Formats: sequence, C-alpha cells, structure tokens
Amino acid sequence: MRETMAEELPEKSNFSEWYNEILKLTEIIDVRYPVKGLYTWFPFGLKIRNLVYDRLKELHNERGHDEVKFPLLIPKKRLMKEADHIASFEDEVFWVERAGKNKLEEPLALRPTSETAMYPIFNKWIRSHTDLPFKSYQVVNTFRYETKHTRPLIREREINSFKEAHTVHEDAKGAEKQIDEAIEIYKKFFDELCVPYLITKRPKWDKFPGAEYTIAFDTMMPDGKALQIGTIHNLGTNFSETFNISFENQKGKQEDAHQCCYGISARCIASLVSVHGDDTGLILPPKFAPIQVVIVPILFSDSDKDKIMGECKRIKDKLKDKDIRTKIDDSEERPGEKFYKWERKGIPLRIEIGPNDIKEDSMTLVRRDTNEKNQLGLDASATDIKEIFEEIKNSLKEKARQKMNSEIIKPKEIEDCKKAIKNNKLVKINWCGEKECGKEIEEQLKADILGSEISTEPKGKCIKCSKKAKNSAYIAKTY
Amino acid sequence: MRETMAEELPEKSNFSEWYNEILKLTEIIDVRYPVKGLYTWFPFGLKIRNLVYDRLKELHNERGHDEVKFPLLIPKKRLMKEADHIASFEDEVFWVERAGKNKLEEPLALRPTSETAMYPIFNKWIRSHTDLPFKSYQVVNTFRYETKHTRPLIREREINSFKEAHTVHEDAKGAEKQIDEAIEIYKKFFDELCVPYLITKRPKWDKFPGAEYTIAFDTMMPDGKALQIGTIHNLGTNFSETFNISFENQKGKQEDAHQCCYGISARCIASLVSVHGDDTGLILPPKFAPIQVVIVPILFSDSDKDKIMGECKRIKDKLKDKDIRTKIDDSEERPGEKFYKWERKGIPLRIEIGPNDIKEDSMTLVRRDTNEKNQLGLDASATDIKEIFEEIKNSLKEKARQKMNSEIIKPKEIEDCKKAIKNNKLVKINWCGEKECGKEIEEQLKADILGSEISTEPKGKCIKCSKKAKNSAYIAKTY
Repeated sequence: MRETMAEELPEKSNFSEWYNEILKLTEIIDVRYPVKGLYTWFPFGLKIRNLVYDRLKELHNERGHDEVKFPLLIPKKRLMKEADHIASFEDEVFWVERAGKNKLEEPLALRPTSETAMYPIFNKWIRSHTDLPFKSYQVVNTFRYETKHTRPLIREREINSFKEAHTVHEDAKGAEKQIDEAIEIYKKFFDELCVPYLITKRPKWDKFPGAEYTIAFDTMMPDGKALQIGTIHNLGTNFSETFNISFENQKGKQEDAHQCCYGISARCIASLVSVHGDDTGLILPPKFAPIQVVIVPILFSDSDKDKIMGECKRIKDKLKDKDIRTKIDDSEERPGEKFYKWERKGIPLRIEIGPNDIKEDSMTLVRRDTNEKNQLGLDASATDIKEIFEEIKNSLKEKARQKMNSEIIKPKEIEDCKKAIKNNKLVKINWCGEKECGKEIEEQLKADILGSEISTEPKGKCIKCSKKAKNSAYIAKTY
Repeated sequence: MRETMAEELPEKSNFSEWYNEILKLTEIIDVRYPVKGLYTWFPFGLKIRNLVYDRLKELHNERGHDEVKFPLLIPKKRLMKEADHIASFEDEVFWVERAGKNKLEEPLALRPTSETAMYPIFNKWIRSHTDLPFKSYQVVNTFRYETKHTRPLIREREINSFKEAHTVHEDAKGAEKQIDEAIEIYKKFFDELCVPYLITKRPKWDKFPGAEYTIAFDTMMPDGKALQIGTIHNLGTNFSETFNISFENQKGKQEDAHQCCYGISARCIASLVSVHGDDTGLILPPKFAPIQVVIVPILFSDSDKDKIMGECKRIKDKLKDKDIRTKIDDSEERPGEKFYKWERKGIPLRIEIGPNDIKEDSMTLVRRDTNEKNQLGLDASATDIKEIFEEIKNSLKEKARQKMNSEIIKPKEIEDCKKAIKNNKLVKINWCGEKECGKEIEEQLKADILGSEISTEPKGKCIKCSKKAKNSAYIAKTY
C-alpha cells in the first residue's frame, strides 16, 4: 500500500477531486471494488471509523440505550405494511428472490432501514408501562439502490456503518423528551468531532416517511453544499398502530405506544475528513486519531543514536502508560519524508527529538492543525500533552464553526438569495412555513430548504408571500 | 420482557429443549423473527457477544492483524472464479437479482465467506515483499441458505457475527508459521471462554474448498455431539494464482503469495452457553459476564435500610472504580426472587449484605458456579474479588476439560466404537488416514471423523485396515 504516499493531493479548493483523492491517499476508503456504490475500508480508515463509532455507541449507552441486533432480510409483506414508509423506499430496495437453486416463496428485502424488521418484535418485548421507556440502537449495514451519483461515505449503496436508534414511550410527552435527548446526544457527538452543524425541522415534504416530523443536523461542506449528517424522527403512533405496539398503562388499559428513531451514517466520517482537512491532508481531532502522537528521532551521527532513541522510547512509554496512542517512526526514511507522511495522515502532534534537543533537555512539538512549533522539557507529562490535545480540539471546533458562520448570508430579497446560492453560500431567510412558498423558493433558487430553526421565536415576514414568518429557514444546495 | 423470568427451564439432560429455552429465558436470542434461520439478539445477549468479540478482536490486534471491512455483495463472476471453492457453496448462496424496478446486469451474491470479495483488492494492496506478511480480519454478517435444521448461534442463515481473518505471506514457511499463530490465538480465546477443544487436521474430503488443508477446533456439546467452533485454512497459492496476488521478492522477481484464512462464528457463544450452563441457567466466566457482581441488600426493617444501602453503594463504587461490572439490585422483589433471577442469568458472584453482616463487619459471597458461600470482611478489596474471578475461571475451565476428557473412549474394535457412539461418546482410534478406510468407518459408525490429532507421533495400527496409523483420529456425531 506504500506507493500511494508519493502521489500528490489536489488543492482543497477543488473539493470534489480533493475528497476522492484524500480518501485514497490517506488510506481511508478504497474505491476499487467492482460494484457501484460499494466500498472497502482500509485498516487506517477503519481505525478512525471504530474510534468514532465506539464513542457514538458510548454516548447512547450513557443515556440508557441498549444495543440490539436484528436481521438484515425483511420479508416483502412486512416491508410493505406501512404505506407511507415504503412508498419512498420502493424504488431503492435490493431484493433477494432466489437462494441456491430455489426461488424463495416470498422475496426478502435487504433492509433500507429497520423499522419493519424491529417493530413486530418490539410488539413482543413491550407489554406494560414498566417496560417503558424502551431505548435501543444497532450499528449495521443497510442498503439503498441509489440512482444518483454514488460517492464513498456520502452516498453508498451499502451503508456499512449505520447507527439507528429506536425508542418506545408511553405518550407524546415521553417521545418529545426523547427527541430532546437525541438532539443532546448528537450535539455532543458532533461537538467532539469538531464538526459544526445547523439543527432544523425539515419541511413537511421532506420528513422521514411515516414520521410526524423530522429534525435534521446538516453541516456545510467546503464546496458550499449542505450535507445531512444526522436525522431524528418523531414517529408518533404511526408505526405502533401498524405493528400493534401497545402496552398496559397504569390503569390496566391497552394503549398505543409513541415512538422515535434517529440515525447517523458514515457521513459523520465524511464530514470529519472534509471539514478539517487541508491541502496537505487530513487533520484529526486527537480523540479520533488512531495515532495521537508520532515521535520522530532526528539522527545525524551514530554516536547520538542510542541516547536519542532511548529518550524517544522513554517518552513513548510514558505517554502510552496514560493511554495516549503513540508511535515512534524509526523507519529508514529521512525526517522530512516522515513529517510529510504523518502530516498527510492527520496525526495531531509530532514530537521531534534530536541532538540539540537532548543538549537542552527539551523536545520539539509540532501541531498538525496550526503547524505551530513549541519546545517542551523532556520531563513533560502526559497531562501536558493532553492539555495540548484539548487546545487542538477547541481550536478546530472554533475555526470550523467560524468558517461555517461566515458562509451564512441573510439576504432580504430573493434576487440576493439567488446570487448567494450561486456563490455557494448558505442562505438564511424568513419563511412562512407553507409548502407553496417553500416550493417556489426552492425552484427559484435551485436549492433546497433545509428546514426551520427549532430554537428561535417567530419573527419578520416571509421573503416570498410577506405573511408572518414562523421561523428562520436555511437554504442551500445539498448532497 | 420481564415475564420470561417466571417460566421454567427444562433439565439440561434434555439438551435440545434446554438450549432453545435458555436462549430465550436468559434473553440471549429471540427466535420469533419470521424468516427461517434469522434471529434477533436481545440486549443482554448482545452484551455477552460484544465482550466475547471485543476480546477476539483484541487477540488479533495484539498479534499484528489489522481490521478491515469489505462489501457484502459479490458479483457472480467473481464468486465463480475459484472452481473448487464455489462448488461447495453454490447451492447455499442467496442472490440479489433485482433492485427497485430494475433487473441487475449481473447477479450479486450475499457473501457466504469473503475470499472472492477480498482477494482481488489484496491484489492491489500487495506489491512487494515489504508489504508482507499482511494480516487482516473483519467481523461481518455472512449468509448461507442452510437446508438442514436451523438453530440459533449454531446453524443460521444470517451468520451475523462472523470473524474471518485473511493473511498473505512470502512463502510456504510463512504460511505454516501463520497457521501456528492462528492456533495459538484460538487456543487462548477458547481457554478464556473456559471451553475445552480438540484440535485436529480435517480429513481431505472435509477441508475448506480451495484450501491445502484445514485445522479445526471442535468442542463436545452436552448431547455428545461435536460442534466445530473454529477453522484454520492453509490456502497455499490456490487463491493467489486465481486472483493474481503476487509480489516482487527481494531479488526483484514476481512470485505468487501464500495465504491463510481462519474463522470463528457465533458458535463460540453457543459453546459458552452450552458447556457451562446447568439446570438453573447460564454460568458465565467473569471476563464475559455483562454484570460480574450483583449486590443484593437484605432488608428486614426500615431502621437498617440506610446503613445497609450505604454499604452496598460504597462497595459497588469501590468495585466499579476498579472496572468490575457491578450492579445493586434494589428492586421491590424478595431476595429469593433476586437470587433466582441473577443465578439464571449466570452472574458469577453475588454479594449479600444484611443486618447480621453489618454487625459482623462482613458480607456474604455466593459463587454461581459452585453455589459456595463465603464471608468476607466489608473492607475486602477489588483485588480480593478479582482473585475469586480467577478461581472461578480456573475451576470452570478445569471442570469442562475433565468432563470432555471423560467422554472420550479409546476402543480397540469397531464394534466397541459403535457402542460408544451410540452412547454419545467421543471415540478416539488409530486410523491410517486413507479415504477408503475413513469413509467405511464413518459409514459403519454413523458418525464423522473429525480429523487426526496434529500433535502426536504415528503409533499403532489402523482400526480398519491394520496398516500403520499415521495419527490418532477422533470420531463423533456432529452438528
């Protein structure tokens, strides 16, 4: 796999090419699998993916979600049971109709999402109000026969890292509370990834099929397009009525349960790569870097070697002891080549130790995100390093947030909106919330209404019809 | 999900029924999914599964294996490329031939195993001897259209927890060395599960299709049948020739690489459940128990309550602090009900704290595996508890090993073999290793030759043809 390190990465301003090349050159995703929309995780990429998903799972566990695992194959009749739901997926489903030499009695779908696989079993698991709230999630592969242009981690036919949470509640209030908790979990998650986001309520025509409403997280990609990175759905009783998920309430009566579901796909990795990376390569927040510190010994003469290597080893052991993922690069390459290699891979911190450092009882630290060089005593502790990690995280997060905010324009007129969208900006407007105006705005701007802000008070007049605007809405070109 | 706790577990001597019921009553696997051979993991079962597979992954990581992830769908032409390989799978493959409204140009197989998905990409990853040895693994769902009786964790149509390792080497010696390493990893893994095993070289007619030879791990189930729990294959250059995995050697010449692959499925969980469980329920080795210690407060009067609960809490915090998974059962149930519930779930250690314990500055410890009661001072440390865990592990392992060994019979005559097999014993014989004798023996005993011992010297005469026996061989009824 080594030859890829020598190839050049396009400039990030040429985002589409940059994105494809960085996935390959830093060994995240191999696109050479011979089926459209199916990709292979390289070892390095999968290490990032595992760090990210382990944390995502932990955030769900901490809030009392239980992990479960349901089958991939869904019988056709079941998938078809919730009419609104299937209508939107029907053209995107992969079907198994034959096994060995036999035609199957009933076609089986590769799950596009798991509501219809899970909920008939929830029907058996949930009996009484004492079983509620019930909070579960799974991380699985799901399938969509995408007809649009496929792209690794962004639009895949096998979504191999789909985290889908499914919860059940006594009443509407319980479901609402869960929506808030889901928002909190996702905020924390993307804050830790240092990926900025907009939280909006999707327009009615764009909600999850079968849901009462959908809350979405979007981030802005370097080309000015919005990328949906998380969705949260309040299902009301739509599915529980179809799949008969009811429970005995405190008064001994059967009631339909309320449900929520919310999902995050490998788009979280796509955003991590795209938001922070630069012309040199990846930039990883320390928490999600497979290697957090790389130590490069600077050797000029053989006489220094033992002493320098001894120091490198001592520091590595000290950091590893405190769970800092540390590597000494003692390969035959020149220091410059090593710097280049690990910078491209996005390793947050490089420590250089050479004869001068030894003399001065110090080492040189170089931050990947700012390129900043600093001297630290050889007696620096793991705590010192962790403090630098914290600074890196805060700086990455702040920089990305500022960047996104600087791309948000609030025009007063439709014509200015058009210009802004053409210039790859994200547009914030007042909108009455009605479909008629919404669709006209989308048509005129050739962009999508992401949705309405969930946290603001109604204000101003709709940019289109001048009626009172319920909330501010965001508009962007989208993936 | 609660009502299942009240149902009765059949006696283990009625193994088949016991197995089905214990999976349900202890909430490991729900079998009510409406597609044959597809099952759902309950939260409790999945916690065990995750502890087991996290350790399995760690054992591979420690030995320098990198985790990867390849697509599920394999184009038909590719799957068909290695003739021996596909011959054995052909009747068991699930096919996707339609997506949405379109018939696919080429049918896609749900992977029955991943050689043909991975090796064409290995062809791109491996260029030079400096890329070797290359050691990788993935944990994925695989599919077999099983026509035999399906059974959760033992014979599934979706094998949702398949760990498959794939390695590439410069020469035959490198591959042999890897086979030894794989055996070491699997020994360590099953030793930690306290599951005893036989390691044999499978007869030629029973090796993995496309392999030079297959080494297998089998354990003995309570009904006397052998269960294959792990296989290790030396592929020689069979696949590398087909998929053109070659490398430039030190002299600058292209050579075909040698390969190994080895797999473990959820049968490891089936063996964990079956080997240790008893008429009461599960018995889990502490390392793989989602809860390792359950603390049950024994409350007679309200006056004791605060003091006792305070002690329970203090001990829980002390143990949790040292990463011991501890739970206080402060539910409304009577202590007897709590004991019963956690014994059924296989929690290794129960701590009871009542007014008498407090008076005597002690607590009562009850081991799940032996039912042994002991007093320990309230100042007992996490280290004391971890020592008991170690004793439990050693005792479980030793007991299971002795049990299996006691079921192995070494008859001198075929007739005695027949009797032993009828009595559900495992039979060890001398065998020349030839197919003709082997097939006749299998026919006469109505049982399978598992394979030949890999570690013994040739000795004695073949029980069938009286020619010199290469090794001892094991015979059993099998799953």
